[in-house]
Amino acid sequence: MERLKVVIIGAGFGGLAAARELAKAPVDVTLVDQNNFHTFQPLLYQVATSGLASADVAYPVRGIAARQDNLAFRQATVIGADLDARVLHLQHPEHEVEDLPFDHLIVAAGATTNTFGIPGVDHHGFPLYNLADSVRLRNHVLERFEAADAEPRLVDDGAITFVVVGGGPTGVEVAGALTELFQVVLRKDFRHLDVGRARVVLVEMQDHLLAPFGRASREHARQALEERGVEVRTGAQVARVRATRVTLADGEEIAAHTLVWAAGVKANPIGAALGLRTGRAGRIEVGPDLAVPDYPGVWAVGDVAAIVDAHGAPDALLPQLAPVAIQSGRHVARQICCLAAGRPVPRAPFRYRDKGTMATIGRSRAVAELPFGIRLRGFPAWLSWLGLHLVMLAGFRNRISVFANWAWNWLTYDRGPRLIFRSRPRADD
Amino acid sequence: MERLKVVIIGAGFGGLAAARELAKAPVDVTLVDQNNFHTFQPLLYQVATSGLASADVAYPVRGIAARQDNLAFRQATVIGADLDARVLHLQHPEHEVEDLPFDHLIVAAGATTNTFGIPGVDHHGFPLYNLADSVRLRNHVLERFEAADAEPRLVDDGAITFVVVGGGPTGVEVAGALTELFQVVLRKDFRHLDVGRARVVLVEMQDHLLAPFGRASREHARQALEERGVEVRTGAQVARVRATRVTLADGEEIAAHTLVWAAGVKANPIGAALGLRTGRAGRIEVGPDLAVPDYPGVWAVGDVAAIVDAHGAPDALLPQLAPVAIQSGRHVARQICCLAAGRPVPRAPFRYRDKGTMATIGRSRAVAELPFGIRLRGFPAWLSWLGLHLVMLAGFRNRISVFANWAWNWLTYDRGPRLIFRSRPRADD
Repeated sequence: MERLKVVIIGAGFGGLAAARELAKAPVDVTLVDQNNFHTFQPLLYQVATSGLASADVAYPVRGIAARQDNLAFRQATVIGADLDARVLHLQHPEHEVEDLPFDHLIVAAGATTNTFGIPGVDHHGFPLYNLADSVRLRNHVLERFEAADAEPRLVDDGAITFVVVGGGPTGVEVAGALTELFQVVLRKDFRHLDVGRARVVLVEMQDHLLAPFGRASREHARQALEERGVEVRTGAQVARVRATRVTLADGEEIAAHTLVWAAGVKANPIGAALGLRTGRAGRIEVGPDLAVPDYPGVWAVGDVAAIVDAHGAPDALLPQLAPVAIQSGRHVARQICCLAAGRPVPRAPFRYRDKGTMATIGRSRAVAELPFGIRLRGFPAWLSWLGLHLVMLAGFRNRISVFANWAWNWLTYDRGPRLIFRSRPRADD
Repeated sequence: MERLKVVIIGAGFGGLAAARELAKAPVDVTLVDQNNFHTFQPLLYQVATSGLASADVAYPVRGIAARQDNLAFRQATVIGADLDARVLHLQHPEHEVEDLPFDHLIVAAGATTNTFGIPGVDHHGFPLYNLADSVRLRNHVLERFEAADAEPRLVDDGAITFVVVGGGPTGVEVAGALTELFQVVLRKDFRHLDVGRARVVLVEMQDHLLAPFGRASREHARQALEERGVEVRTGAQVARVRATRVTLADGEEIAAHTLVWAAGVKANPIGAALGLRTGRAGRIEVGPDLAVPDYPGVWAVGDVAAIVDAHGAPDALLPQLAPVAIQSGRHVARQICCLAAGRPVPRAPFRYRDKGTMATIGRSRAVAELPFGIRLRGFPAWLSWLGLHLVMLAGFRNRISVFANWAWNWLTYDRGPRLIFRSRPRADD
């Protein structure tokens, strides 16, 4: 019998987990992504704050495909599909179009930034969702300091004031890492500039940070950030953003050349492009087994899928987190394995096993909430955060490099890759 | 008495060497560069062939300035000068203009690619002189393989044929590293593509490679390259370059989507911009002490200076190499130290001490010609090349990272950072 063709859209956590789970199955898997690398998103904020090099958080997909005989890769953009004919339409960087037939299609296209239509955020805000975002923010932050060093009057204009929007893990982590970068490294780099005047303002709509965490962790995070000089504004909203000004809903205007947007994501619009029914925040509607209704063989996992929380309220969706993506990707892969092997498919609905959440708050501090009510704070939480992320990181070489960089940064208070670098010179911009 | 103001244009080998030599002198030094990092050019070819990450060969200038009290940095472009009034005109990235006064000006602006006016090279050629060049070439090489993998007919069109022009160390090293990348890594990455059909053609005008080396080394290099499948074309010239075709002077047309231009450099045009007299290849004319005639306090060092070889023919100029830049930078700095300290200036002319030259030819092979007639080939030469470059590399962290990457690449036959990545997404290109 013909081997089943499985096509996976997206080489993120969900897509890779599904591809690996299919390694032993009698199927041919093709992984499609616009980039030739997998991005380890939990560490993007460290690239943005010069703690890691971009190569440390990116792993070539073909490095994985090379070790898995039934896995092929296509660097291409999905431009559509004929779901009845079971053909996916791809466009390669050079614009040739390719029709990729499939028996099973796993949509794992992830998410994109959600600016909630707030004026100016699209144009002036710095999201932190992909590798290009993180390098662009790094360049911009360092450029603001170079500009202020050359023209100190720019400090009053907000050149070294950084507004971070979103009090979730990403916002908390980037706010903490920015203050640390300023106090630990840039203070030495810019001796003729009063780096003490650099401000980091963390804006969160709700009245507390780290919504998914318990009260104690939230308080600890806020306290840790404030001790490090972050101005935490809970119960505040951004109303408008211009190049050098951020206006809050209460009318307050903050002179700031930088707005980091960590306030939320929405599903990758690919669901609509494929003609699939999408629900809240554009997420593709799936059944309890993660199959897309009415389209046998089509599945959706991770951030792009509207996965109902089996443990939560009837219509509560699971959060758009890496562990959900990984577990849902594996769940779909296991069902396809059974189909391919002609075994009965377990009809069990997908159940997310929450292994806990963590967030770092700069050097040596973090909060972690693990199963069995284990709550960690400060140094122990920070160490467990480091350990977990090293283990999750794809590629042994990246693990070595990230570990070496962390050790270096921690011991020397240095930040190696604080480079203002675009892969094309300004002239071409 | 007022401390002397020393301004150095360029944070390359020459400029940094001069700045460091002035660390103890009673002067205020300002280093000016368009980038906020020093680029370790000898390893750019390894970035271009995915052996090292871009951050490994770039070191933040402010990391050096932070440890040297009398050293300041300006990220800016030099747009002119009033040499009589001793003021340098700078333009910052945001276009503000700054007038920087100086008592001594050291021009260490380096070189730029020399295409000798061959049609198409400017537009289609890939130079390998700065960090952006190396990343652009890396992206392009990997993209060619992705394109050929998606559309195998492109192989006949030259998608995975790479013409390297210039048989000097850079050309030899990049040709060797490219074949190694193909055979060692991409062969595994692209299982469905006949990577054995990838070609590297090394074109050299003279009838031998590595002109600065002796006969035995040249032969060894050629043999090593040919054993690894590089097609060496000596006595050949490129007449014209188009996007997918390279035409040689004898009329032969090579179907190739990539032309790496390692055939030569010319001085940075800044000399003319400053109104200084320039000679061959635009190099600034200097006296035996590296002072610019008629402009007391103005000096030129390294690739940008027309430094006469005290040991060579009367009008022979020193080669544009890192050791010349370093030694000439120090020579000027020492004279300024004496002037600043009110000591008599040693009138000794600059004498270049040739410490030898080296070139690697891919994995475990190299040629080295050291003083006292020491000639190394193969593995010993390769080891000494590694050692020398690790020592020369700026920054302990970079040394660790480069060493770790080399060990990894050598042991695992892997190449970590084989990423197709631009710091801005395609859409913005």
